[in-house]
Amino acid sequence: MTGTRRTTPAGTPPAAARAAFRAGTAVPTAGWSPGFTQTNLVAVPRAWAWDVLLFTQRNPRSCPVLDVTEPGATTTPLAPGADLRTDLPRYRVWRDGQLAGEPTDVREHWREDLVAFSIGCSFTFETALAAAGVPLRHVEQGRNVPMYVTDRPCRPAGRVHGPLVVSMRPVPAHLVPTAVEVTARLPAVHGAPVHVGDPGALLAGSLDVPDFGDAVAFEPGDVPVFWACGVTPQAAVMASGVPFAITHAPGHMLVTDVPDSAHQLGSPT
Amino acid sequence: MTGTRRTTPAGTPPAAARAAFRAGTAVPTAGWSPGFTQTNLVAVPRAWAWDVLLFTQRNPRSCPVLDVTEPGATTTPLAPGADLRTDLPRYRVWRDGQLAGEPTDVREHWREDLVAFSIGCSFTFETALAAAGVPLRHVEQGRNVPMYVTDRPCRPAGRVHGPLVVSMRPVPAHLVPTAVEVTARLPAVHGAPVHVGDPGALLAGSLDVPDFGDAVAFEPGDVPVFWACGVTPQAAVMASGVPFAITHAPGHMLVTDVPDSAHQLGSPT
Repeated sequence: MTGTRRTTPAGTPPAAARAAFRAGTAVPTAGWSPGFTQTNLVAVPRAWAWDVLLFTQRNPRSCPVLDVTEPGATTTPLAPGADLRTDLPRYRVWRDGQLAGEPTDVREHWREDLVAFSIGCSFTFETALAAAGVPLRHVEQGRNVPMYVTDRPCRPAGRVHGPLVVSMRPVPAHLVPTAVEVTARLPAVHGAPVHVGDPGALLAGSLDVPDFGDAVAFEPGDVPVFWACGVTPQAAVMASGVPFAITHAPGHMLVTDVPDSAHQLGSPT
Repeated sequence: MTGTRRTTPAGTPPAAARAAFRAGTAVPTAGWSPGFTQTNLVAVPRAWAWDVLLFTQRNPRSCPVLDVTEPGATTTPLAPGADLRTDLPRYRVWRDGQLAGEPTDVREHWREDLVAFSIGCSFTFETALAAAGVPLRHVEQGRNVPMYVTDRPCRPAGRVHGPLVVSMRPVPAHLVPTAVEVTARLPAVHGAPVHVGDPGALLAGSLDVPDFGDAVAFEPGDVPVFWACGVTPQAAVMASGVPFAITHAPGHMLVTDVPDSAHQLGSPT
């Protein structure tokens, strides 16, 4: 554990951030290695991978896939040198759709038949929003972004189904168009919002009671803006009763070596 | 076969175009139902579908997937009422990577385990190029667009591998930026070019000898512009020796009910 106190999130290159997490630092990755893409992790057995890959293809707003491994592989070209079993700060282990643990290392849980999906994360577009002058209320208030399970079903794929999960950010009314334009240019990290204003048309419950993350306070003139969220595949793992899965713990992402700029529309793929 | 002579391509709605093809009209679909998306078809056995889906995910420029069927299904939400086995004007049947026939109806070849991929086609971005004032030399010259097998390998997926195939359009030098901008906004139909000018850096052979389609004449000041091409998955079927596959015949696409405008960046998905 020596050395982990020396790292400051914003000044840490991705490989050093991963080394710190590998060594035991178990904190959310918001603010770590700014400018580099962070990703959601979902690993499922090969026998379920077709359904999950098809689910992501049919729901690209919520599940923008940046990489898929060969079965059993523990590396990704998004982060050369990284070990997917150790280099995230915290994981979730799922059995039959139920949460079975939140370890900081999943080497003992990994299976030879696991296929790991790396899915784009809204941290990337938050950098772009901030650069465009759109305030991020949850960051100002030191909270995690609020996330809500909607009544809107995703398009199912075989045995995999579940609701759309959205993240919500209050945006000053005059900056809503900017927020839409900036994120529309980033389809690999959820793209444009799916809904603006009128929470009652999207959610059964109250904005004050998010399903994940923290409630966030509105400033006068703020409008709620909703984006498809990378927690959607985790909700599908739960809803579908996938027999076994490993995901990141919410907010505890894989920090990759891919610069955020790679996701601007038209960049080479 | 009665009635097929009454249809005029440009004035035919998609459902009527498909009905004409189902009735036996076996012509290329260029110019049919303008403004509606046409797609490439690749159907492979379920046992190969994972590798093919992963191949498309890893090569999104050449293989932008618009729909994937459940095994055995012969319909697609892209074209309600269409039968994928009859409604394209001409097909190709492949056995062990070898062309085994070019029928106009594949009902007798279809299998219960086939998974059908509908893949975006450059016909969509040609409409956008023309609307932006970029001349289409192959259309002016009444030829099929020239396509070339490059030396550049696609990123493989399991047993599926193959070279990148590109289409080439001569573009006046001062309109090259426009051509890039217009197509960059359409990532679901190949997006921005992959290469501009300098054919020798991309191709082993001459522009005068395309691997598919027709050679096209350059006007003075034209620059060759290369886009990733939807024939790439067909080349992968060949290169990988897939035991059985059904595809469209080049230029004989599925005419869908999806308006081209649906592929503009930021449209709902």
